[in-house]
Amino acid sequence: MSNNTAIRDLLAFQRQTEALAGVAGRLGWDQETVMPHGAAEQRSEEMAAMEGVLHARRTDPRVGEWLEAADPKDDFERATVRLVRRSYDRMTKVPSDLAQEIARATSVAQGVWAAARASEKVADFLPTLGQVIALKRQEAACLAQGGDLYDALIDDYEPGASAASLAAMFGRMRPRLVALRAAVVAKAPPAAVVGVFPEAQQLALSREVATAYGYDWSRGRIDLAVHPFSSGGGNDSRITTRVVESDPFNCIYSTIHEVGHSSYELNIAQDYLLTPLGSGVSMGVHESQSRIYENQIGRGRGLTSWLYGRMREVFGDFGIGSAEAFYKAINRVQPGFIRTEADEVNYNLHIMMRFDLERAFVRGDLAVKDVEAAWNDRFRADFGVAVDRPRNGMLQDVHWSVGLYGYFPTYALGNVYAGCLYTALTAAVPELEAQLARGETGAAVGWLRENLQRHGGLRGPRETIAAACGFEPSEGPLLDYLEAKFRALYSL
Amino acid sequence: MSNNTAIRDLLAFQRQTEALAGVAGRLGWDQETVMPHGAAEQRSEEMAAMEGVLHARRTDPRVGEWLEAADPKDDFERATVRLVRRSYDRMTKVPSDLAQEIARATSVAQGVWAAARASEKVADFLPTLGQVIALKRQEAACLAQGGDLYDALIDDYEPGASAASLAAMFGRMRPRLVALRAAVVAKAPPAAVVGVFPEAQQLALSREVATAYGYDWSRGRIDLAVHPFSSGGGNDSRITTRVVESDPFNCIYSTIHEVGHSSYELNIAQDYLLTPLGSGVSMGVHESQSRIYENQIGRGRGLTSWLYGRMREVFGDFGIGSAEAFYKAINRVQPGFIRTEADEVNYNLHIMMRFDLERAFVRGDLAVKDVEAAWNDRFRADFGVAVDRPRNGMLQDVHWSVGLYGYFPTYALGNVYAGCLYTALTAAVPELEAQLARGETGAAVGWLRENLQRHGGLRGPRETIAAACGFEPSEGPLLDYLEAKFRALYSL
Repeated sequence: MSNNTAIRDLLAFQRQTEALAGVAGRLGWDQETVMPHGAAEQRSEEMAAMEGVLHARRTDPRVGEWLEAADPKDDFERATVRLVRRSYDRMTKVPSDLAQEIARATSVAQGVWAAARASEKVADFLPTLGQVIALKRQEAACLAQGGDLYDALIDDYEPGASAASLAAMFGRMRPRLVALRAAVVAKAPPAAVVGVFPEAQQLALSREVATAYGYDWSRGRIDLAVHPFSSGGGNDSRITTRVVESDPFNCIYSTIHEVGHSSYELNIAQDYLLTPLGSGVSMGVHESQSRIYENQIGRGRGLTSWLYGRMREVFGDFGIGSAEAFYKAINRVQPGFIRTEADEVNYNLHIMMRFDLERAFVRGDLAVKDVEAAWNDRFRADFGVAVDRPRNGMLQDVHWSVGLYGYFPTYALGNVYAGCLYTALTAAVPELEAQLARGETGAAVGWLRENLQRHGGLRGPRETIAAACGFEPSEGPLLDYLEAKFRALYSL
Repeated sequence: MSNNTAIRDLLAFQRQTEALAGVAGRLGWDQETVMPHGAAEQRSEEMAAMEGVLHARRTDPRVGEWLEAADPKDDFERATVRLVRRSYDRMTKVPSDLAQEIARATSVAQGVWAAARASEKVADFLPTLGQVIALKRQEAACLAQGGDLYDALIDDYEPGASAASLAAMFGRMRPRLVALRAAVVAKAPPAAVVGVFPEAQQLALSREVATAYGYDWSRGRIDLAVHPFSSGGGNDSRITTRVVESDPFNCIYSTIHEVGHSSYELNIAQDYLLTPLGSGVSMGVHESQSRIYENQIGRGRGLTSWLYGRMREVFGDFGIGSAEAFYKAINRVQPGFIRTEADEVNYNLHIMMRFDLERAFVRGDLAVKDVEAAWNDRFRADFGVAVDRPRNGMLQDVHWSVGLYGYFPTYALGNVYAGCLYTALTAAVPELEAQLARGETGAAVGWLRENLQRHGGLRGPRETIAAACGFEPSEGPLLDYLEAKFRALYSL
């Protein structure tokens, strides 16, 4: 790649840092899947020790010197320097005392949040929440250096995004989503799937669906977890799922979602293994992969007709008489309190609400004592229903307890990017739906692999999407897709 | 514990080192149980990066300074200083280039050994073996500083042991073992267990047996592995087992053996967690726990009569008509090529042979080109049978490929120590066999926990055994136990 000594040294050093980051990530997987519960306290010391090692490496003064001396010659080297500089600058701007205090406070806060959510006592969570927000505002001030605090936080998850551009985008999305939802809910809802779907068959079917999506079992595995996630990268990226025996779609679509995330990691070019380019480029682009696997591909007419056949074979009769009725059941639009269970029409409205509330936190415009009222007022305004209990309201998400401010909008960006990619994908593979109806995802996931996934961190997030699509990303394709799909589905 | 700043700083630093060592160990567990096979190469980079981190910490000059300045005030602090000094001295004596070369060479050699074992081509393994031996001799020379090379290597596994003392002990053991074996094999062998024992039931029974031995499932778990092992310490120590459907004892006694190792780690005093005292004190003492759980307790008349009842309930009739016949079947003495499958009478004879051969390697008295002939000659002399194929001969064990010279004798020491502990245990718990016949191990494992396991690294290995037993350890109790057991069993 180059004879440049500084870049060679930087890459050699970085290779070990990436390997150690992989080890730390594996500890998280272990904790959520197989760890004996009595090991929790010891594990938190192990995690903290690994974080200490990683922080020391990422802020090592030699990294600064190598970056200074580097003279990148090609796209790979330029991306390497850009990505390491970004990490180095961010980490050296935040005093290590503050970073440790945030790590400690958010670790405690997650437990406090979980307990408050279980007991539904909002007041138990508020002091801790206030502390986390105060610390994150301090961190943001270090990072922003006079600029917008919330932008500085977003930048950790989605480099290049800004609150202003997101607010403008949400402003354009809201009226079309609200209008679509109003038209849909005026119609009678389609029949839902009802029955008992045994765990063993759900898991076997999930494995089959993951295989149909091309998930590479030689470099991955599936386990059960309370909240499904994917974990790891390079040649070891694992997924998890969960089973609700009354709702087979929970398991199947959680699996597909995580297969999307995991396949992105596994499909990055092997040349980038253990380099700064060897991971998904941003949370938004990552979510675009999980979402297009799950929604545009997985909840479309083609794949659901294949899935209907498989489910009939596995589970027998479950009260849905045709592939068309099955497609409608899977795509029911209905009001609900919980973001993670929201349909494609409602989902982004949940995000917009969180975006506005967390911006107010970070600006200092919303005090924690007022957050429950603010949440409930806003929910009633946006969804027309009163929140019935805290676990269906502001205690539903883990994010704010663990300091993830600026993270929620990446979910909506992922949907928007998935909309763009789907437009480009259907143009490139006109026979897509016919293939999916046979359970054949090869052309679709192959197109995503070649045009997006394999490039890892070579380009910035928007540039990654633009290069794959051949056009600048915007919310238009997603909204067009949603309107077309749900107008047809609800005969509007 | 003390206001001594140097010791406080040392313990704080060491706490993170211990936590990181736990992380590295967990990677090994992951690799052998759940890792997707395509991740192997990446994993070796992760392991090497962790080793680099640990080596840097263990040889950090500050450790030397703290040791220099330390003024230990009590037993805990004295043990801390002793254990850290030991590790620091050993690691700083070996140049880091050589340490890395050994790590690299043994990692490669393990693969070469496995391939040669599979193809049974000894010649494919010999050049690699020669390279590993040469490197280990260099390492031994750094450590021995003019003393005996083999002693310097043993010391890594069994501090305080020496080739001379082991040779003398083996010299005393051999005639009595050989005489016992000769008397036994002159008699007709007892009936063996035959049948097919389904995997699911074997695993369920193994869990039940582990529970009966007091294994703490809240801080451990069981998985399948090709070669059973236990892994981890503190509050997370896991076991593995394997299943051979024609031989239920493989699974059950592998499980009991690993429960012994794992319980030792789990039962160390919580005050010692993440300190230098928080692990088993030596390989020999570790093996004494796995062996006494497996043999003196697990293969005795009491526990086997309970196990017979459970197996009849789980598997139905398997051709053994009484608890007495079952006890005899489990304790069949028979010639065999494989160390790990050897009965209690033959086992230590396998060790003596390896001990002599590897001492000759390390002295430079045995060239690798001659090792197969040396092995086969010695095996015929010691066991009266000709080795039929390399995988039943010198290719059976992984140890020499991965550089474990001086490790084999710790297995025999474990047996010797288990013999001592059993003498003390039966004196302390006279009703032991009656309890075990009811599947009650509480008094036995409680005695081991309180008198040995909880003390971790507080004392040296021999001192640990002596403190538990109330007498100096020797081979006498083991030989007395074996003679009494097998004379009765074979009506000699």
